[in-house]
Amino acid sequence: MTMRINGKHRRTIWIDHREPYVVRVFDQRLLPWRIVEEPLCRYEEAIRAITDMHVRGAGLIGATAGYGLYLATLAAPIGDDDRFMAFVERCGEELNTARPTARNLKWAVDRVLAAIRTVPGAEGKQAVARRVADEIADEDAEFCRRIGTHGAHIISEISLRKKGTPVNILTHCNAGWLAFVDYGSATAPIYAARDAGIDVHVWVDETRPWNQGARLTAWELQQEQIPCTLITDNTGGHLMRTGRVDLVLVGSDRTTHTGDVANKIGTYLKALAAKDNNIPFYVALPSSTIDWELDSGDDIPIEERSPEEVTTAVGVDGAGRIQNLRLTAEGTSALNCSFDITPAELVSGLITERGVTTADRESIHAMFGR
Amino acid sequence: MTMRINGKHRRTIWIDHREPYVVRVFDQRLLPWRIVEEPLCRYEEAIRAITDMHVRGAGLIGATAGYGLYLATLAAPIGDDDRFMAFVERCGEELNTARPTARNLKWAVDRVLAAIRTVPGAEGKQAVARRVADEIADEDAEFCRRIGTHGAHIISEISLRKKGTPVNILTHCNAGWLAFVDYGSATAPIYAARDAGIDVHVWVDETRPWNQGARLTAWELQQEQIPCTLITDNTGGHLMRTGRVDLVLVGSDRTTHTGDVANKIGTYLKALAAKDNNIPFYVALPSSTIDWELDSGDDIPIEERSPEEVTTAVGVDGAGRIQNLRLTAEGTSALNCSFDITPAELVSGLITERGVTTADRESIHAMFGR
Repeated sequence: MTMRINGKHRRTIWIDHREPYVVRVFDQRLLPWRIVEEPLCRYEEAIRAITDMHVRGAGLIGATAGYGLYLATLAAPIGDDDRFMAFVERCGEELNTARPTARNLKWAVDRVLAAIRTVPGAEGKQAVARRVADEIADEDAEFCRRIGTHGAHIISEISLRKKGTPVNILTHCNAGWLAFVDYGSATAPIYAARDAGIDVHVWVDETRPWNQGARLTAWELQQEQIPCTLITDNTGGHLMRTGRVDLVLVGSDRTTHTGDVANKIGTYLKALAAKDNNIPFYVALPSSTIDWELDSGDDIPIEERSPEEVTTAVGVDGAGRIQNLRLTAEGTSALNCSFDITPAELVSGLITERGVTTADRESIHAMFGR
Repeated sequence: MTMRINGKHRRTIWIDHREPYVVRVFDQRLLPWRIVEEPLCRYEEAIRAITDMHVRGAGLIGATAGYGLYLATLAAPIGDDDRFMAFVERCGEELNTARPTARNLKWAVDRVLAAIRTVPGAEGKQAVARRVADEIADEDAEFCRRIGTHGAHIISEISLRKKGTPVNILTHCNAGWLAFVDYGSATAPIYAARDAGIDVHVWVDETRPWNQGARLTAWELQQEQIPCTLITDNTGGHLMRTGRVDLVLVGSDRTTHTGDVANKIGTYLKALAAKDNNIPFYVALPSSTIDWELDSGDDIPIEERSPEEVTTAVGVDGAGRIQNLRLTAEGTSALNCSFDITPAELVSGLITERGVTTADRESIHAMFGR
């Protein structure tokens, strides 16, 4: 079952066949209060959409980068393949740095660049860029679907042990449908388990400062009629200590080939609590998120965003107007780190499109034949 | 040095000698945007002030309960000491249940009741209730001052090891001046260290959902010109992993005589991260916070407050108006647990008015001669 808004199947990024030179996304800054489709007509708009988080999430950032490079091929100078490629490669570098922690960005950019490099002529390169961008999006959806199948077994086993009483799953941030092209990574096993008739209930961390949990994950789960309860980021440890969490399931923005996981800031704290309470802690990710070069999570660059995201909050007032409030006294300093590293030893397993693997170099390499 | 607002020394609760039947507090729901003094004229108002968090924090809740019972003696029926006491005891029970986790509540109520029980006549009981309520407040301030002295040694030792570079202290919630009558518990060592010329910098957890850190602690530290940086509740683990925290210092709403600590939800997660990174984790508390009856933190009742605190946030808009925004889609369910338990084995030590002790039954009993 693919994902829906108000009952209608939607992907998070698409091209309308009537306007093949325009990439379309939802402006996620306005969710869940407004469902606004945004056209991206130039590669600079794709970069801004990534940087300013109109789109976000590992898979969707990758897909947007792929389509962004397609848009770059439409703007590249025609007539000389070298000049064409130089332009597109420069765009690729800009896309690469749109957000520093996300692995799928570089992965998608490299894939499109490699595919078009040897194709002669502008039109040929444009056609291949479009095809590869489509492939990246389709593959992302398909890999998430498979992650769902593999991960559902973990939920199913817990459900059997609990004799069918609801399996309580805690998730952090949004590694959902909205973070990918379809299904999501951490949510895919939940949707697959639900489709298999397993009772699930999801604890949704609100995920300050951007509130991906409160705004996106809770809404997404509601659209799919999955029972869920919003909690502050402070609450998961207490729920684990008091036996109210059976499984922690999160996504990843970059995972080293040694099993260290970069994910939304706060993930590490939940992993520690899971360990302290013997609760399985799984990370769901397509292999496009794996960094095959870095040996240690400590070498992953951690994005710092504007302190204003911390000193403010976005929501709707009584009249439904989207507003931004200052939460502090004037002049309060803040630091806004977007990700943290969960070391491999705290990870029970990685759920990938090829199956579930333990989070260590040997197992990961074995699974992907490297 | 006592605490100041705009340079002027203030306590958080007081009686103006010109109106001896009125207790005065700041309405902390409006801080830091408005400094509004609130008169409490009847014991019911004291109860509501505690329940609805016009006042909050271990020591201030205790002091408000003491003065609340004084207000109850002013409303009690005169002429028959038994009827008088029955009325006041009933008020005491109501005060006791105003917030379930806070230990200082029962401690203060019991202390006032015990003092007035044997005093003959309404006027005598009223006078003693007032005197004991004053004592509770004065003692709270004095004990916090001593906590400052004892705790400053811990900071001083770290400062020596760091050769005078700033000591980075992470705190959660507000165990500051505003949570007590003066000085605060977790903040007192910071103020004392500053007064001793030690360079400190404080990481302030914003502390969702009520944002005591963003609204109260950051503001309090700014009033005292202590360098501080606001972070989301998700961030502390990452800062500890990357060597940017030297000490975690928090307060407590109830600590068992075996060393288990109930404190603001999320404290447990920070204690786990401190342990994982070999960072000292200290809890500052006056002995009025110790529960001498419960053997396990798991038996401490954990308050659940309105889910609306989680689905909304309070702040000021561009025009400086205090507003409340909904952070979620309509109809989002939420759970709002206010405290969690940090087991004694995660606590490096308790900083009390008598000195620093390890968090175990024997040491705690030895320190307090029980």
